[in-house]
Amino acid sequence: MQKIVTSLVLGSSLMMASSLVQDAANAALKPIPQSQTALLKLIDNPKNPITKEKVELGKKLYFDPRLSKSGLISCNTCHNLSEGGDDGVEAAIGHKWTMNPHHLNSPTVYNAVFNAKQFWDGRSPDLEDQAQGPIQASPEMAATKGHVSKTVNSMPEYVAEFKKAYGDDVKVSFEKITDTIGLFERTLVTPSRYDDFLNGDKNALTKEEKQGLKTFIKVGCASCHNGLGLGGEMNVLNVTAKYKYMNVGDFKGDKNGMVRVPTLRNINQTAPYFHNGKIKTLRGAINEMARIQLGKKLSAKETKSIETFLKALDGRKPNIEMPMLPASTSKTPAPELN
Amino acid sequence: MQKIVTSLVLGSSLMMASSLVQDAANAALKPIPQSQTALLKLIDNPKNPITKEKVELGKKLYFDPRLSKSGLISCNTCHNLSEGGDDGVEAAIGHKWTMNPHHLNSPTVYNAVFNAKQFWDGRSPDLEDQAQGPIQASPEMAATKGHVSKTVNSMPEYVAEFKKAYGDDVKVSFEKITDTIGLFERTLVTPSRYDDFLNGDKNALTKEEKQGLKTFIKVGCASCHNGLGLGGEMNVLNVTAKYKYMNVGDFKGDKNGMVRVPTLRNINQTAPYFHNGKIKTLRGAINEMARIQLGKKLSAKETKSIETFLKALDGRKPNIEMPMLPASTSKTPAPELN
Repeated sequence: MQKIVTSLVLGSSLMMASSLVQDAANAALKPIPQSQTALLKLIDNPKNPITKEKVELGKKLYFDPRLSKSGLISCNTCHNLSEGGDDGVEAAIGHKWTMNPHHLNSPTVYNAVFNAKQFWDGRSPDLEDQAQGPIQASPEMAATKGHVSKTVNSMPEYVAEFKKAYGDDVKVSFEKITDTIGLFERTLVTPSRYDDFLNGDKNALTKEEKQGLKTFIKVGCASCHNGLGLGGEMNVLNVTAKYKYMNVGDFKGDKNGMVRVPTLRNINQTAPYFHNGKIKTLRGAINEMARIQLGKKLSAKETKSIETFLKALDGRKPNIEMPMLPASTSKTPAPELN
Repeated sequence: MQKIVTSLVLGSSLMMASSLVQDAANAALKPIPQSQTALLKLIDNPKNPITKEKVELGKKLYFDPRLSKSGLISCNTCHNLSEGGDDGVEAAIGHKWTMNPHHLNSPTVYNAVFNAKQFWDGRSPDLEDQAQGPIQASPEMAATKGHVSKTVNSMPEYVAEFKKAYGDDVKVSFEKITDTIGLFERTLVTPSRYDDFLNGDKNALTKEEKQGLKTFIKVGCASCHNGLGLGGEMNVLNVTAKYKYMNVGDFKGDKNGMVRVPTLRNINQTAPYFHNGKIKTLRGAINEMARIQLGKKLSAKETKSIETFLKALDGRKPNIEMPMLPASTSKTPAPELN
């Protein structure tokens, strides 16, 4: 008798899980695949395939503050891999302590490869192109293309690594450098227990987290936050709604008012929220999004349930060993602090 | 006959090496010991012994920018472990892009455990004490003790790690936090081929590097740059000499005009040089130090020979995996950018 009951309970639990996986698929939610081959296919750049040498080199460049005019700001400064892939402040602070002039919050670099487009207004098609932006932007790294290529070419170790990665006839141009940074960023993918669940491990999520996923789908969050990144596509930000936060910054999306939906992966680690970083807490963000984008006032129970699910999106980060950067030489441009 | 010649040559080469090791010992040069037990004895803090848990926790705190007022500056910002343990600029840049008011250059954290005292003026007895300084200094991390302890205590993962490291009754005070950072810093030791040579591996240095070590000793560099750190003791900086660089900054040493001699380990990776960072190249630094401190004008050959030796002090850095920091909570103090 006990056996039959257990079997019925297990059966029903499995059925629930399996129907939830189906609901998630119907809501266009997609897990990061477990197979490394399948994952590589998703993240690779056909024009510049991922290799170990390129990724190692890209990592060094990502962490090298000498690419900036001041010699003090690296990609990792605003997209800190120790801090969920961003910087924890409302709006990016760059060269000469300048705040992003549009009061835009730094998006996480983790899983950014899954974004259909890059930047909040989606003006960039991929990570390679995106990497060119902040390096040159005067309120960010404030460097010229010439500064970047001259800096990298001034260090024989870097040049040797470029040759190893791309062949002896490589030209270490600004674009080759940013392409290599973008390639490294493609590898920053963080599978989570949520993915394990969608990939078939029925016990990867707790009962409360499964309930949270249900609520997430039922409330309609997945209408924008879907796909591999639970976000990453362009969508309309309802600027006609009365935003609590719209009085800060002048961002209005792209020319059609479209905004790149942020990924929800590792969202618990990337406060503050929204394009201008004006929402401090995850619960606040959930409530405000439901109100503005879905016209819904969530109950405290619903908010908490969604929050519980979102925390299960904390991903397993790649193990990243701190790179040791080549020493500057007499040819390396001196830092310019002004 | 060939055999006898070979044997004579080898014999003389070995003799030269062995006599050079003796010369180095006579000049008070000391290698980092190969034995991990012996090394631990040199770097450990009897009042707070090194454990794996404390070091891992200290590493997180070292990399956590939320310890600063702005949430943007960590210990690693100015003492960048990827960049030879310093920042590559003349004088430290901190909160609100403020330059060190005395135009003081950030010393490397690598091998700083071997310094007899900390800071350029030696005002601090050890790394634990030193760590309290920059965190609170308004032109650096600009935090209050309260900000730091409140920040760390706001994250349950940090508190749990402190309990794991120090026991359940630990009080996560500012001093406990800085003690733990100091403990991590104690482990940042970088043995080099120079140490291998002094420890008995006759072929660890090239012929030119051995010649460089001889020149280094003969010229008199080792009269200040000696001991485990090739530096680290207090000594007189000859301020009566006409310095090329003394017109920048107001640093005059401690109350007796004494200055902490910088370590020469990894010196090739820590340009620019001198307390105010006004000397750009290693050769320039060698020449200027010989002129000022030893009253000598070096020949180009001597300078090059010493430079060749100094480059052999590039050490093997510890493998440091980027720590993943706990997520901020609603209790974590918000970043203050002003």
